[in-house]
Amino acid sequence: MYLAANFNFLMKQVFASIITIGDELLIGQVIDTNSAFIAQELNKIGIAVKHRLAVGDAWDDIWDALNDEKKQADIIIITGGLGPTADDITKPLLCKYFGGKLIMHQPTLEHVTYLFEKVFKRTLPLSERNRKQAEVPDVCTVLKNERGTAPGMLFEQQGKLFFSLPGVPFEMKGLMTDHVLQIIQQKFKPGFIEHRTLLTAGIGESYLADRIKDFEEALPANIKLAYLPNHGMVRLRLTAHGYDHTELLISIDHQFSLLKSQITDVMVTDEDLTMEAIVGKLLTERKQTVATAESCTGGYIAHLLTSIAGSSSYYEGSVVSYSYAVKENVLHVSPETLSTYGAVSEQTVTAMVQHVRQLMNTDYAIAVSGIMGPDGGTTDKPVGSVWMAVASKHKIITRLFQFRFDRARNIQLTATSALNLLRQLIVDNH
Amino acid sequence: MYLAANFNFLMKQVFASIITIGDELLIGQVIDTNSAFIAQELNKIGIAVKHRLAVGDAWDDIWDALNDEKKQADIIIITGGLGPTADDITKPLLCKYFGGKLIMHQPTLEHVTYLFEKVFKRTLPLSERNRKQAEVPDVCTVLKNERGTAPGMLFEQQGKLFFSLPGVPFEMKGLMTDHVLQIIQQKFKPGFIEHRTLLTAGIGESYLADRIKDFEEALPANIKLAYLPNHGMVRLRLTAHGYDHTELLISIDHQFSLLKSQITDVMVTDEDLTMEAIVGKLLTERKQTVATAESCTGGYIAHLLTSIAGSSSYYEGSVVSYSYAVKENVLHVSPETLSTYGAVSEQTVTAMVQHVRQLMNTDYAIAVSGIMGPDGGTTDKPVGSVWMAVASKHKIITRLFQFRFDRARNIQLTATSALNLLRQLIVDNH
Repeated sequence: MYLAANFNFLMKQVFASIITIGDELLIGQVIDTNSAFIAQELNKIGIAVKHRLAVGDAWDDIWDALNDEKKQADIIIITGGLGPTADDITKPLLCKYFGGKLIMHQPTLEHVTYLFEKVFKRTLPLSERNRKQAEVPDVCTVLKNERGTAPGMLFEQQGKLFFSLPGVPFEMKGLMTDHVLQIIQQKFKPGFIEHRTLLTAGIGESYLADRIKDFEEALPANIKLAYLPNHGMVRLRLTAHGYDHTELLISIDHQFSLLKSQITDVMVTDEDLTMEAIVGKLLTERKQTVATAESCTGGYIAHLLTSIAGSSSYYEGSVVSYSYAVKENVLHVSPETLSTYGAVSEQTVTAMVQHVRQLMNTDYAIAVSGIMGPDGGTTDKPVGSVWMAVASKHKIITRLFQFRFDRARNIQLTATSALNLLRQLIVDNH
Repeated sequence: MYLAANFNFLMKQVFASIITIGDELLIGQVIDTNSAFIAQELNKIGIAVKHRLAVGDAWDDIWDALNDEKKQADIIIITGGLGPTADDITKPLLCKYFGGKLIMHQPTLEHVTYLFEKVFKRTLPLSERNRKQAEVPDVCTVLKNERGTAPGMLFEQQGKLFFSLPGVPFEMKGLMTDHVLQIIQQKFKPGFIEHRTLLTAGIGESYLADRIKDFEEALPANIKLAYLPNHGMVRLRLTAHGYDHTELLISIDHQFSLLKSQITDVMVTDEDLTMEAIVGKLLTERKQTVATAESCTGGYIAHLLTSIAGSSSYYEGSVVSYSYAVKENVLHVSPETLSTYGAVSEQTVTAMVQHVRQLMNTDYAIAVSGIMGPDGGTTDKPVGSVWMAVASKHKIITRLFQFRFDRARNIQLTATSALNLLRQLIVDNH
């Protein structure tokens, strides 16, 4: 413990700042997913992110951001502002900022020509705008963009690195993986950061915090605990910094075991997995299968399950029954059940879950039916009322939930809760 | 034109900065959707966002961010750092920054108690941590949080407004709508900002830019054009600023008409709608219905369609057929078709689309089958190959797509492309 804390003092933390450029970020038309990816990747190699800053497509704002962030950070990663259209001023600005002039970069021009002719299969000649994509400041190192026309650029100034990457997430990710991370590792030889994450369910953030108060206060200085509540569950994350990787691993694993031992009853998993990945892992281990019958979630549970690569080995499919007719004709819910109890009822989800499990011949099934809002609520069944059922060959469990949010959040919470209910059934069904 | 440009000079633009607090943002564990919402809402009332800045849960970083941002902006909106757990230092910091001391706010304590007892239906007594939620600096105006326990806070310093809001999106949104926007409007009486957005398909960003180059260069100074490429389509957005609302509307609508007249052949819609909303609108207008049969998208098309409130009036449901068995047994694709042509084939999607339209008795249907990756590709059908079909009562259109991205993006692009194909069929089918 003492050693681990000590290493922290010896370690010089390397800091990065992420600057995203684009008016669309400042008017909220686009959600910034790039920064999260870049932060994750930097973190894995031991770089701490100091700031994430979004600025508009305005010369002075970008210029000032570069000046401000280089005071704070050793590495500045800029995304966006490199597209072929006229509102992009980033490249001329970088040219001026680093004291260079724009030149045509021949290998990039060849790459752009290749992409247009062979990959995009365009018959039109390369336009002047597209040719301009291959222009770069003569003071940068060009980073080849395998996935698109705008090259990445690396500038160095007073021992600090400045990377300029395109804003298209797919291209930015390629450049990070192909070039940026290696260059940073070579230059800075940063220390190590390790995370351990676990997921709890059924306990509020504040009660959890009270329970592990003593543990948290006794943590060494180089290990931090964070509470990440989401979808009605709380994730706990330990983060450790240090230079000696072996020492660091011993220290964080020791603390993680301690933490787990104090919350076994509410812990869902000790891995940093989504609920759909946890369910997928359980089914893969057990070589079992699942099908879904979804009314109110409208295919979102199916989407979550199939967002996992390899899910075809355990997921058969879904009937999304958004109407009474589909509930009757495809899921064989009887008209009497629907008229007597309604679509949002224990009887209906029970019929749905039984039929879809048989129809798709699976080990397990999930069925949900509810009112997601904003309309459709009644006094008996207000917006947010959801009946769900999970079934194995021998057992059906039903549950009524009452969510209190907007449509999108109600759909998410319903899906996660249904997957958690299935998880419990699978774990109990051993 | 001249007048509109002139108004711009008279107008004092009010600026805001958004500071999001939380280590989870800097390690990329959480995607920041709050900033986008806040930016959108500020924008609608004529406030321009200067910066969006994310900082960690560290005293100095938050302190410095407040100092830096108040130089840039008239309004500073802080989210996050108000939860009940120990890593939250925001409230003591704000107390010190604005020179106050923490006091118990009685109405908030009553609200917290009410929430725990009546809404969350907790039987445990209110913990010390939960009581602390009701403590506020005595120099702030408390903004009641109807949706949660952490109150919003308003501070004023040298004519600038500082809002501190909880980071939970649902609660933050409530506080923005209930309090923040009105307070800002009352104090600053900002000018107006108007946007007009249209969506194009089938033309690249650079070709589009060449086509409307003259239009763009002739725009008055107070109107800006932005290119927003996404999901293989390009959105064009005009933004106008000004004090005279009538003048502003005339000017932007004039420019928008001009723009539309130059790109009628590639314009999908002149509203700021998602593809699923466009399809929903067309079906609602025509009182027609649709069903889907999804293999590779795994329910994502159904999810997009049902994310629109009111979609139950035109959307019947989906069969997500993730296995051969479900394609055969539920969608009646013949075993011969599957063995001769494979699941990813024109023949299979044709059979899927025909059967699901009949099964769910709809006017239209969509079917998709493809290989989303990372595994499952072959030489003939590499990762990203997708067959899709759309059908009306009298017509079936099929298409082969070849996407080149990762699993998540391939799923998104497949869904959007299929919805666009359906849109074309509906529009042609009048």
